[in-house]
Amino acid sequence: MASLKIPATIPLPEEDSEQLYKAFKGWGTNEGMIISILAHRNAAQRSFIRDVYAANYNKDLLKELDKELSGDFERAVMLWTLDPTERDAYLANESTKMFTKNIWVLVEIACTRPSLEFFKAKQAYQARYKTSLEEDVAYHTSGDVRKVVKVLFISSLKQSLLVPLVSTFRYDGNADEVNVKLARSEAKTLHKKITEKAYTDEDLIRILTTRSKAQINATLNHFKDKFGSSINKFLKEDSNNDYVQLLKTAIKCLTYPEKYFEKVLRRAINKMGTDEWALTRVVTTRAEVDMERIKEEYLRRNSVPLDRAIANDTSGDYKDMLLALLGHDHA
Amino acid sequence: MASLKIPATIPLPEEDSEQLYKAFKGWGTNEGMIISILAHRNAAQRSFIRDVYAANYNKDLLKELDKELSGDFERAVMLWTLDPTERDAYLANESTKMFTKNIWVLVEIACTRPSLEFFKAKQAYQARYKTSLEEDVAYHTSGDVRKVVKVLFISSLKQSLLVPLVSTFRYDGNADEVNVKLARSEAKTLHKKITEKAYTDEDLIRILTTRSKAQINATLNHFKDKFGSSINKFLKEDSNNDYVQLLKTAIKCLTYPEKYFEKVLRRAINKMGTDEWALTRVVTTRAEVDMERIKEEYLRRNSVPLDRAIANDTSGDYKDMLLALLGHDHA
Repeated sequence: MASLKIPATIPLPEEDSEQLYKAFKGWGTNEGMIISILAHRNAAQRSFIRDVYAANYNKDLLKELDKELSGDFERAVMLWTLDPTERDAYLANESTKMFTKNIWVLVEIACTRPSLEFFKAKQAYQARYKTSLEEDVAYHTSGDVRKVVKVLFISSLKQSLLVPLVSTFRYDGNADEVNVKLARSEAKTLHKKITEKAYTDEDLIRILTTRSKAQINATLNHFKDKFGSSINKFLKEDSNNDYVQLLKTAIKCLTYPEKYFEKVLRRAINKMGTDEWALTRVVTTRAEVDMERIKEEYLRRNSVPLDRAIANDTSGDYKDMLLALLGHDHA
Repeated sequence: MASLKIPATIPLPEEDSEQLYKAFKGWGTNEGMIISILAHRNAAQRSFIRDVYAANYNKDLLKELDKELSGDFERAVMLWTLDPTERDAYLANESTKMFTKNIWVLVEIACTRPSLEFFKAKQAYQARYKTSLEEDVAYHTSGDVRKVVKVLFISSLKQSLLVPLVSTFRYDGNADEVNVKLARSEAKTLHKKITEKAYTDEDLIRILTTRSKAQINATLNHFKDKFGSSINKFLKEDSNNDYVQLLKTAIKCLTYPEKYFEKVLRRAINKMGTDEWALTRVVTTRAEVDMERIKEEYLRRNSVPLDRAIANDTSGDYKDMLLALLGHDHA
């Protein structure tokens, strides 16, 4: 469930655009007005506002925001205002540029979005950056090999997992179409490869990267039933291996996205000096999707409500923007 | 979220009562009518119908149902029609009578209900059975000692955990009132006792049975943060010990009720010959509480929707009743 709150009667996009136009004009920017409008409109409504803004004022709303705002607040408003697929393209591009550090972000995007949405994000990537996401991932992973000696021995492996993950148009099967026999046999294959520590085995990668989410889920459930523990528990032994960490992240994103996001938020907030980069990413990408469930997991795991934890760790307009997206009352 | 579906316009209780009265009369009972009314009314509405039925026909609706229906269908309709606190009293009584086998049910009731509701269930128990739940639990656990030699060595321990669980009016604290310092120190205590395998230690039992759910949650979260694994993973080593199983169940019910109920359903359905006793209990007690979340967990863990799994395993009016409570469309 989304945390986004939209007013019962929504102003016309012409009115919203005019209010935003006024918010940018004059002596100072009216940040409160920007939040009260944009943080309470859904993706379709925001897109409509951008269109009307361009038509009526002959200006790109995003560029106006870029000019008027700054810092963490700017990044939060910009990411939020983008269409979800444009936003994913942007985040993917950001993460290919600082690759080894943020390799997780690509796995997150590849594994938590519905297939069609991820496919559209790749189209948006190509339209915006004139290169394909697959190319950039492949390029930057070998780039890492050259730059970062430490991760040399794993980068090609990383690539072997990531390129299939980002290049497959994974079929969003539902539970009706699960092939139980296949799930059983592939659970066995996974178990065999993992006990042999053949983590980069072609079959293992093929199973995790090309099957539908429903099919993978069925396979992992059979794995648990047959071998007594979840696949991630089996992988835990080798979790100081970066490649295995990547596998575990992919599996968690595929099977329990709300717990994955809870952990990202927990780490971002508990870090000495909050990790605003991750915090903004998770809040802006999930507010319209499953933020209510993530809040539930957060409270359960941290004994503090997410909004209070964020309020304690952030300030000013940035704080107000995040809290608005988490569902706090609007003006 | 509840799975119960209530029509947009609800007939007056007089009309519902009249329809039910007609459903009982004549050549055969109209089971479909009973389901279409009772399985689509919330607790307050059902209670109102019972009152009006008694006033207009001078008969107890529950006794009428008891007379007209039979088997699993009867138990499902009866349990559902009862007020939630009366129902808990009934289930608790049922489980004290067949104690060793169904000790879990008491833990389930004690740990998954809000404190006030559990307190009311105990009042209802006393009103109905003229004895207190605590007395019966204590009585039947020693009774077990005599009857079942096998469990002799653990029954007194079972009792030492269960009596506090059912006798405490556990304070439903919320996250605002968590004492972080206390959580830290009690997490340490729990860890110490568990590594010493002092599972029946007084402090351990006191912490798990008297603290508010929010406080226990905070303690268990600190436990996980500090000692790297959840308390239940620490307890797993000794999980062939019945008393430890009981502890684990209590902890799961307190921290992750929807997963606990998913597992009860999974076992009930996967058993050779479905366990209708457990199936009916979980569906009737959770349909108005969190059945949507349980369905979500069920699908995730079994790759089959709960309603389909139940439809495959049950039949006739019983099946129709359960599916109606799971939110299937009504007439």
